[in-house]
Amino acid sequence: MTATPLPDAPRLPIRPELAHEEPYGAPQLDVPILLNVNENPYPPSEAVVADVAAAVAVATRGLNRYPDREFRKLRTALATYLERESDVGGLDADHLWAANGSNEVMLHLLQAFGGPGRTALSFAPTYSMYPEYARDTNTAWVAGRREEDFSLDPEAAAALLREVRPAVVLLPSPNNPTGTALPLDTVQHLLDVARTTGPDGAATVVVIDEAYAEFRRAGVPSALTLLGANPHLAVSRTMSKAFGLAGARLGYLAAAPALVDALRVVRLPYHLSAVTQAVALAALAHTDELMAQVASLRDERDALATWLLEHGLDAVPSDANFILFGKFTDRHAVWQGLLDRGVLIRETGPDGWLRVTVGTPQETAAFTQALVEVLG
Amino acid sequence: MTATPLPDAPRLPIRPELAHEEPYGAPQLDVPILLNVNENPYPPSEAVVADVAAAVAVATRGLNRYPDREFRKLRTALATYLERESDVGGLDADHLWAANGSNEVMLHLLQAFGGPGRTALSFAPTYSMYPEYARDTNTAWVAGRREEDFSLDPEAAAALLREVRPAVVLLPSPNNPTGTALPLDTVQHLLDVARTTGPDGAATVVVIDEAYAEFRRAGVPSALTLLGANPHLAVSRTMSKAFGLAGARLGYLAAAPALVDALRVVRLPYHLSAVTQAVALAALAHTDELMAQVASLRDERDALATWLLEHGLDAVPSDANFILFGKFTDRHAVWQGLLDRGVLIRETGPDGWLRVTVGTPQETAAFTQALVEVLG
Repeated sequence: MTATPLPDAPRLPIRPELAHEEPYGAPQLDVPILLNVNENPYPPSEAVVADVAAAVAVATRGLNRYPDREFRKLRTALATYLERESDVGGLDADHLWAANGSNEVMLHLLQAFGGPGRTALSFAPTYSMYPEYARDTNTAWVAGRREEDFSLDPEAAAALLREVRPAVVLLPSPNNPTGTALPLDTVQHLLDVARTTGPDGAATVVVIDEAYAEFRRAGVPSALTLLGANPHLAVSRTMSKAFGLAGARLGYLAAAPALVDALRVVRLPYHLSAVTQAVALAALAHTDELMAQVASLRDERDALATWLLEHGLDAVPSDANFILFGKFTDRHAVWQGLLDRGVLIRETGPDGWLRVTVGTPQETAAFTQALVEVLG
Repeated sequence: MTATPLPDAPRLPIRPELAHEEPYGAPQLDVPILLNVNENPYPPSEAVVADVAAAVAVATRGLNRYPDREFRKLRTALATYLERESDVGGLDADHLWAANGSNEVMLHLLQAFGGPGRTALSFAPTYSMYPEYARDTNTAWVAGRREEDFSLDPEAAAALLREVRPAVVLLPSPNNPTGTALPLDTVQHLLDVARTTGPDGAATVVVIDEAYAEFRRAGVPSALTLLGANPHLAVSRTMSKAFGLAGARLGYLAAAPALVDALRVVRLPYHLSAVTQAVALAALAHTDELMAQVASLRDERDALATWLLEHGLDAVPSDANFILFGKFTDRHAVWQGLLDRGVLIRETGPDGWLRVTVGTPQETAAFTQALVEVLG
């Protein structure tokens, strides 16, 4: 077989908007200290490993059969977890949806509600994958702006909803890469406005992306508390961060059953493997242990923010497991200097800022020491 | 929380073409003999179970990190498997792609090459999911017709390629639900024609869906043998059937590296979990054992076809692990009669026909006995 097409080789019909694109992804470099993609620094405990392996062994004995398409056992377990984590009631399997990572959850949302002739809206700076989800579903993309402090002005955002009439608005809380949570009254105001700002007088689906919500500071309520009265609200979560399961790919959302039913129509049948369902269920049984870890990461984050401020740097107040800090006239030089010292962080967000993931105390110490050296 | 929207509840902006759709899927009924969705009747052996569990335990210790986005170890193992299974050379990781089931592989193909303003073509009767893949990617859908014996007329098919100018043509071999394999000269003829029948003079991407290829009769070559000279050819496979891993969701394809690169642009990052990668690699290490099982299923299929013919029924010659048989004036009554006797098969394909999966000898005996009773 020859890998090189012949001179008269046929030309592939790649869609024009994809023709010169590179696959998305942060660099995966082999560096001692990885603080670049907001992973949880703590591997699963041996107790979790043992339970996951046992659950997978059981699932494997039935792998010749297709998995449960509706994965109701997992949806029920996720509902129970959310009720407890966010102190809400009334959630059951019908309110839950899950997929291979919250990026597939977003894909389902845009397939059901976005698509050709429709628009998705968000507010920059925000998660860099959102425009790719829009592109992948042929949904038009509009990005408004956040304020100087990366907060969202409720009236400006509402005005843009009325003007753009998006089918979907994507609002991460806390925001990535800034760590900024949305006040609940801002979410409520936008939900009120969004009841009629979608296509043809329908609602705009308001997606509150709570991928990092478990790391929020005390007193910041989840948008889950607003679900009951808002059938056009979807609150997405992931097991990648708080549960330390980025490698297992389990994203999910809570919403009114009618919204979930629309996602059931566009999902590929059997999209969630029996193994993925087993892994997620086994990890959810260890919620207590994993939430204790989250609490310690929260403390670690606050300590790191204090350290940055004490060293004359800006640090955006964060409700996530990362901190946007700066500002640097040459952020790339700082990023490179850290990398040269074995610490990989992320060069992302507005110019002049860098984003660092909160790691173990040892990793934080390596980062702060390297930063002191780089900044001389 | 209330599940019932208030009278003045906002209306969800569900896409019009999805508004009255039900989620796809064969009925999942609780019946002793399941011969309805072409599953492999043999559960993984305890040796496979042990190796999968051990591999997952190792993977779980690193689940706090994102998986290898490029899954090159798995792609290399799949290339090695295909080279051996189909007696071809020159395949490596760059020629391979994989996703959560071959339906996600198809989604990637249609996202990269189909989409708004473009058309996907197939020939009915064929796999009932294809039009859904087209709908999910906003790709127009055209279905030509197979001949009376469910074969494909090469000239009629070529004429339709020239007329429709599809971006993608989906050709299952063997076909589902008829079991009909495509002769290699038909595939070669269509590949020649397809070099310029795509949008704007580009090629049509020719997808040979070989989900059931391992069950083909001796002497039927795989379309993999045509890869080298045809950069617009993609040959898809799955671990669901021959490997008995429907629950693990691992579909894949082989194609020229440039075609694979286009799929890398549209895939969601980290779409294949570290656990899925570990499970697939562990199962691939048991190829010998699993291929022996495939050989016995092949024998079982041929015996069942003979039995059907000997009992005065039609049975379409099959290169898959299922048989389309008939014809019945009231196929639903036959299907229901079997179900009443604890045997679930599939009421699919052209009117008058039914499809039965090849099970264990015991399952086949239960099916033939029930069928004798039903047909009285």
